[in-house]
This record gives sequence, C-alpha cells and structure tokens, in this order.
Amino acid sequence: MMLAPLLFYIQDRLVDPWLENKEEPEFDTIDGPGNPVIIAGFGRMGQIVSRLLRVSGIPFTALEVNYQQVDFVRRFGAKVYYGDASRLELLEAARAGEAKLFVLAIDDVEASVRTAEVVRRHFPNLPIIARARNRTHYFHLRDLGIQNIFRETFPTSIEIARLALLRLGMSPAVTERAVGLFKSHDEQQLEAQYAVHHDEKALIQTTQQTAAQLQELFETDEIIQGAQANLPTEKV
Amino acid sequence: MMLAPLLFYIQDRLVDPWLENKEEPEFDTIDGPGNPVIIAGFGRMGQIVSRLLRVSGIPFTALEVNYQQVDFVRRFGAKVYYGDASRLELLEAARAGEAKLFVLAIDDVEASVRTAEVVRRHFPNLPIIARARNRTHYFHLRDLGIQNIFRETFPTSIEIARLALLRLGMSPAVTERAVGLFKSHDEQQLEAQYAVHHDEKALIQTTQQTAAQLQELFETDEIIQGAQANLPTEKV
Repeated sequence: MMLAPLLFYIQDRLVDPWLENKEEPEFDTIDGPGNPVIIAGFGRMGQIVSRLLRVSGIPFTALEVNYQQVDFVRRFGAKVYYGDASRLELLEAARAGEAKLFVLAIDDVEASVRTAEVVRRHFPNLPIIARARNRTHYFHLRDLGIQNIFRETFPTSIEIARLALLRLGMSPAVTERAVGLFKSHDEQQLEAQYAVHHDEKALIQTTQQTAAQLQELFETDEIIQGAQANLPTEKV
Repeated sequence: MMLAPLLFYIQDRLVDPWLENKEEPEFDTIDGPGNPVIIAGFGRMGQIVSRLLRVSGIPFTALEVNYQQVDFVRRFGAKVYYGDASRLELLEAARAGEAKLFVLAIDDVEASVRTAEVVRRHFPNLPIIARARNRTHYFHLRDLGIQNIFRETFPTSIEIARLALLRLGMSPAVTERAVGLFKSHDEQQLEAQYAVHHDEKALIQTTQQTAAQLQELFETDEIIQGAQANLPTEKV
C-alpha cells in the first residue's frame, strides 16, 4: 500500500500557504485581564487540556514558542500567544501573579525545566501541573518542588499492556490485578529512584533491586500464577 | 536553581563508556523458537509494555533499531534484538508467523507505518496493537486495517485536564462527567475525521463542526453549567 504524504504533512500543508506571505512576527503582547489558567506549550497535550477547559467554561491563556503551531491553532479559533514561557515579561503579561493554575505542557525537556524554574522563583504560590518526558525530566521537576507531574507516555503504555494481556487470554480480573500491582510498584520505584537520583551508582542499584522485587511480587502472587497456567496456546 | 546535566544525560553517560571500545555490530540473528509476543520499538513505551508482560510470565521478543537503546536495556537483563522491524528477514527470524500478538511501539511515524505495512502484508493474521503519535499517524494505521491504536499522549492529557478541573474547584462527580463526555465526543470526532481524512477540505470542516457540537453539548449540559457557577474565585 502506498503512503499518502498528504497525511503525514497535512499540518505543514495547511500552515505553509498561510505563512508564505508573512514575516515571523515579534512576540505577542497580552492585553486585558488575566485568566485563571495559564497553559505553557500548545502542542498535542496542551491542546487537549485546553479543549476540556474551554468546554467546561474555564478561561485560559495559552503560551507557545512555536510560531507555526500558534498560527495553525489560531485559525481554528483558539486563543494562544506566541512567546517563550520562561521569559518573566511574558509570564507577567499573562498575569501569572493572579492565575490559579499553571499547566506546564511544554514537550522540550530543557525548555520545560527552564520555565518551571522561572515560575517557581517568581510565582512561588502558583500551583503547577506538569508533563514529563521521562524519569530524569520528572526528577528535575520534583527538584523544583513540583508535586503533580505526569509522565507523558506512561498511561498509554499501561493501556497497551492491558489490552495485550487480555488478548493473550488473561481474564479481565487477573489483568486488572496485574496492572494495579505494576502501577503501584512503579510509583514506589519512582519514589525510591527519586530519593537517590543524584547518586548514579545508587540509582542503578535501586532500579535493579526494585525490578527484582516486582518479579518476586508477581511470582508469589497466586492469582497471576493461576493466570499463567491458563494462557491459551492457540492464536488470539 | 542550577540544572544538573547528570540527570538530562544519565542514559548517555551510562551507555557511552560501554560503547567506546565497540564497533556498531551487524544486525543480530535470532535463534531458537519464537515467543508469543513481538514488541517492535523498545523505547519508553515498549519497555513499560515488556515489563508488564515479563512479570506476568509472558515471553516476548523485542526489536529495536537504535543500537544504543538496545545495549543499554540489555545491560539490565532485557532480551532485545537489534534490527529494523520493517525488514521481512528480521520478522521471519522473530517467528512472526507463529506469534500471537505484535505490539507496534515504534515512535518514529514513518518507520512505524513501514513496519505495519510489512507485517500486514506478510502476516495478515497476526493481531497488532499500535501506538500512534497523532491523528494522521492514527489514520495511516487504520488505513492498513489496524483496529487497536492508542494515541501516545492522549490519556496523559486527559489525566492532566482532570486534575486541573479538580484543582479549580469542580466536584469529582462533575469532573468525571465532563471528562467522560469529552472522551466519548473525541472518539466520535476521530471516527468522523477518519471517514473523510483523504479529503482535506472535508477534514477541516468536520473538525470545526464536531468542535462546535461539543461546545453545544457542554453548554446545554445542566451539570456542567452548575459547576461553572460554583467555580471558586480564590486561589486553589
């Protein structure tokens, strides 16, 4: 089957004709009163969060450094400002001091941490909910005192694994038990790793130890053991 | 606060000393009988899926094109083969013909679609569970007849939005209702978009129409309306 380049590049193709006759503008200025929520990063995740806020009637100000991304979503009616969310001037223009919540949805790790540092330093009372690319990104954000951090592909990985177990013949009850055990173990592992994350040797050791603990946990779990014995040998 | 480069680069730093004295090897050959599950792509998502399979006692064969990634996880005891999962020889060596499930967890969109094409053409009876980067990637995989596709950052976006609504003072019940409405609407929108995705104009029109429908849905929903009236004006 042929690939349809239209699909890979539809966003570029929609954006390009619009951009052709325009210079890249100066960073936007934000006028008027602030909104209760500031969303930094208006990519795949920031947009979903903003849609749920919008339909719930909660006003937000979105900040996005990528000009093409901003212009594209603006054409669909979204209210987004072009600018680097780690710049204090932009945060002040967005009335960060009066906001109730800061959603840190920037995908780039260094830009995310840089923004988190500025927000924490200048608006220490503004609660932050953050996206993290991976564990090291997560550790960085925790070091800045952020408590609500979501690893961006973790829940989807769990959903894929759940469906895989079901498709391989595990019962729904056993699958939910396995998933629940794994998730709570993974959270404990993350905490244990965070406690030693400045010490490389201890980090590796902790990772290996907690992996062994999880294995042991499952091996001594009768429900999972029973499930293994019942795995079908034919194709699902 | 200073950035700790150790954290950003810990994986590189763990891998580099190991790589220094080695040439990049030829693609691995896979010996022995096949495993019931093949995981293509052993990055953040493939690894989580594999950990849940491993503790559940289900053998898998992981294929990963990135040599450094493979060597790194091998040092922690994982069984992974270095190779391009879209190469028929590698799929045959992994006994794809006898496998029960193929987990397509490759992050790169073009490599993912290329692999899906080869698997669908040569192993049409092998069920696939796939990761998609975005909607266009999703449409591509659907075009190849794959039914079980998970958008990689969508569930996390929903989790962030859920916590945001709660932090802004929405009750748990109203929040769950809003999240549930949004998710089912989003799935309908995805289906509607898929139906017209080869027609650029119709795709934009459908997107705008379904967005308006969602807005209307929430605006006529008394429970959500009630929630808006109760939004607190002080900081959360």
